[in-house]
Amino acid sequence: MTNSFEYRGGAFFCEDVELRTIADQAGTPCYVYSSSAILSRYREYVNGLEGVPHRVCYAVKANGNLGILRLLAEAGAGFDIVSGGELYRVLQAGGDPARIVFSGVGKTREEIEYALAQGIHSFNCESEAEISLISSLAVRLGKTASVAVRVNPDVDASTHPYISTGLKEHKFGIDIAEVEGVYARAAGLPGISLDGVSCHIGSQLLDPAPLVEAAQKLLGLVARLRAKGIRITQLDLGGGIGVPYRCGDPRPDVGAFLQAVKKLVAGSELFLMFEPGRSIVAEAGALIARVLYRKRSGDKEFIIVDASMTELIRPALYEAHHEILPLRQSSFGNVKADVVGPVCESGDFLAEDREVANVLPGDMIAAMTCGAYGFVMASNYNSRPRPCEVLVEGAGWRIIRQRESLQDLIRGE
Amino acid sequence: MTNSFEYRGGAFFCEDVELRTIADQAGTPCYVYSSSAILSRYREYVNGLEGVPHRVCYAVKANGNLGILRLLAEAGAGFDIVSGGELYRVLQAGGDPARIVFSGVGKTREEIEYALAQGIHSFNCESEAEISLISSLAVRLGKTASVAVRVNPDVDASTHPYISTGLKEHKFGIDIAEVEGVYARAAGLPGISLDGVSCHIGSQLLDPAPLVEAAQKLLGLVARLRAKGIRITQLDLGGGIGVPYRCGDPRPDVGAFLQAVKKLVAGSELFLMFEPGRSIVAEAGALIARVLYRKRSGDKEFIIVDASMTELIRPALYEAHHEILPLRQSSFGNVKADVVGPVCESGDFLAEDREVANVLPGDMIAAMTCGAYGFVMASNYNSRPRPCEVLVEGAGWRIIRQRESLQDLIRGE
Repeated sequence: MTNSFEYRGGAFFCEDVELRTIADQAGTPCYVYSSSAILSRYREYVNGLEGVPHRVCYAVKANGNLGILRLLAEAGAGFDIVSGGELYRVLQAGGDPARIVFSGVGKTREEIEYALAQGIHSFNCESEAEISLISSLAVRLGKTASVAVRVNPDVDASTHPYISTGLKEHKFGIDIAEVEGVYARAAGLPGISLDGVSCHIGSQLLDPAPLVEAAQKLLGLVARLRAKGIRITQLDLGGGIGVPYRCGDPRPDVGAFLQAVKKLVAGSELFLMFEPGRSIVAEAGALIARVLYRKRSGDKEFIIVDASMTELIRPALYEAHHEILPLRQSSFGNVKADVVGPVCESGDFLAEDREVANVLPGDMIAAMTCGAYGFVMASNYNSRPRPCEVLVEGAGWRIIRQRESLQDLIRGE
Repeated sequence: MTNSFEYRGGAFFCEDVELRTIADQAGTPCYVYSSSAILSRYREYVNGLEGVPHRVCYAVKANGNLGILRLLAEAGAGFDIVSGGELYRVLQAGGDPARIVFSGVGKTREEIEYALAQGIHSFNCESEAEISLISSLAVRLGKTASVAVRVNPDVDASTHPYISTGLKEHKFGIDIAEVEGVYARAAGLPGISLDGVSCHIGSQLLDPAPLVEAAQKLLGLVARLRAKGIRITQLDLGGGIGVPYRCGDPRPDVGAFLQAVKKLVAGSELFLMFEPGRSIVAEAGALIARVLYRKRSGDKEFIIVDASMTELIRPALYEAHHEILPLRQSSFGNVKADVVGPVCESGDFLAEDREVANVLPGDMIAAMTCGAYGFVMASNYNSRPRPCEVLVEGAGWRIIRQRESLQDLIRGE
């Protein structure tokens, strides 16, 4: 846990606000984020890159709430987007279009036109067909698009298969063995400026070594491209730094990783870009839930809470682990139980066979490290309104997204 | 495939409407449902139960669109709900509250009060604590709640672990070995009428034999309860009948299954209830997508389409198979490819290593058998607006849910 969440006198706090107060007033389930945790993790990147020209582009897909984007925009962040919807979000939050990089394998014509019209910084391109499309759309709009090719460096990121993206068999990027030909052909296209090389090898990397390995491979590529007269000025190493989901797990050392990268790029005169998402917001967030029922079935104990896979799908989808902590500590010790939600699926669980606090109906719990890939993946499955989101700043807090109503469920039908 | 979807002269139709027409006018991605397919599957249940008092309660969680609920309400269906949101949906669609049964392990106090106030038919209770809560809330509101206990018959449903629900280690129901004690204690509670016995052993069962086995176990329980003076009048066997997801797979014979159940219950004077969801709507729906890019990476071929795990999470979550068919047949044969969406996850695929039509950018495809657990599990992940839904009736079609706008994405923030 970060020190943004801590027990004080047995009560669980986010910064200087008791979480029970938020849960009582905002209701449950409810996402709570610490602004100081978000900003301190963002600054870790910025500080680590001091001395080299750089931009830290927060990956909006991790958590795109306008309140969080505004916080980061005000701190000077750039943004990594993967859709027109994310571009819209960043603009609504006051983000600077000139600091936006557009990634993703399936950019539509409409999305590319939207991004060109807004004057974003650059596109990370995933296929030759996409580069051609951007070229022709830019020409038609009378613009020049800054383009980087996302290179697939064939580095094994050793993470969950669903979030590992840097191997040859993945849909992402262009194989490093084939990419020089792509650059050579694209160099002849109008409407684009071939400025960058980019990669993104996966997510939730606890060991930055594969990222450093990818950087080395990309620097080799930059040298070869420059030797052929292609003037590469930018190196985007993507995101992917992981966070400790289990209590006591070490946190990857972002500073040391950036030090290693800075050493590698010294003298290359490259503008360095990073696209961290999870490592900035994951630990800053918790999902608060109320215990509805306790139930025993055979040898199994169930704690049924009012949060489910509709609020947090990571346990079901990635077998992800989230620590479960009580909002009030008690002397009743622990119990081995499944913490499950109300959704009608056996896959609807927050924790399985876990030693957790011996909470009773009416008590509150927090699922920790839920700031990334939490709310953004929420659904209305089982016709459950999506929860509210709260941002804490010191001793203050405010709702940054209202809980959905029953009326919201049928909007558009 | 049901005969609601078929090729006519090389063009793919839903009933008498060419799907390309819908895709061109409504845009993609887009869910399309056949009303005749839904009604014919519903009538299969009703016809199969002729001669015995019964109610077929459509499981709203499979697809809760108001247009579909209205169709079934007009056909006389009851409804199986699992949340206050689903109750709201049924009421908005003109469903009769007296035909609603409320299931689910995590009913909140507010949801129970809402259901009591609306006068629903009965509650399927999942724990002793829930029965007590319903009793006390009913007393306070001056109502009598009809209650069935959901029994966990410990029958192995042989399906995906996430949708198998009838084993002892699951959160659902009360162990059949312990349930008689629960009935005995609940018989003394005010505000409730202990009318029913219910079960639901899992989903996507291709062999109805475990359902018949569960029915036998429950009939034994009914006899024992009646011998103790508990006047059980209802038997709810839940849902769970599967559908063929692969072309050529056999469809479970609903008629034969109901015949077998009717034979078992003959002379028991039980009101029979079923809660089918998937078997009514799954085959009636298709997800239409447009091809954005073709891409080769190493030995792999990718077809990148504009539908993703945000519209259809079943392949990523359950390793589900959905047939992928082109909206126009061509003479270009097949290609072995991954059909993937634009979302930034390797888990974002509709099909992996599959022989599919050799479609090019601009062509349209349909992911089949998407009428159940499709749209209802959709999310806004990657800030993607949720798709529209279309209902076809003969030669006519209409949008039954509008595509979300970018403005919709930030509502409440």
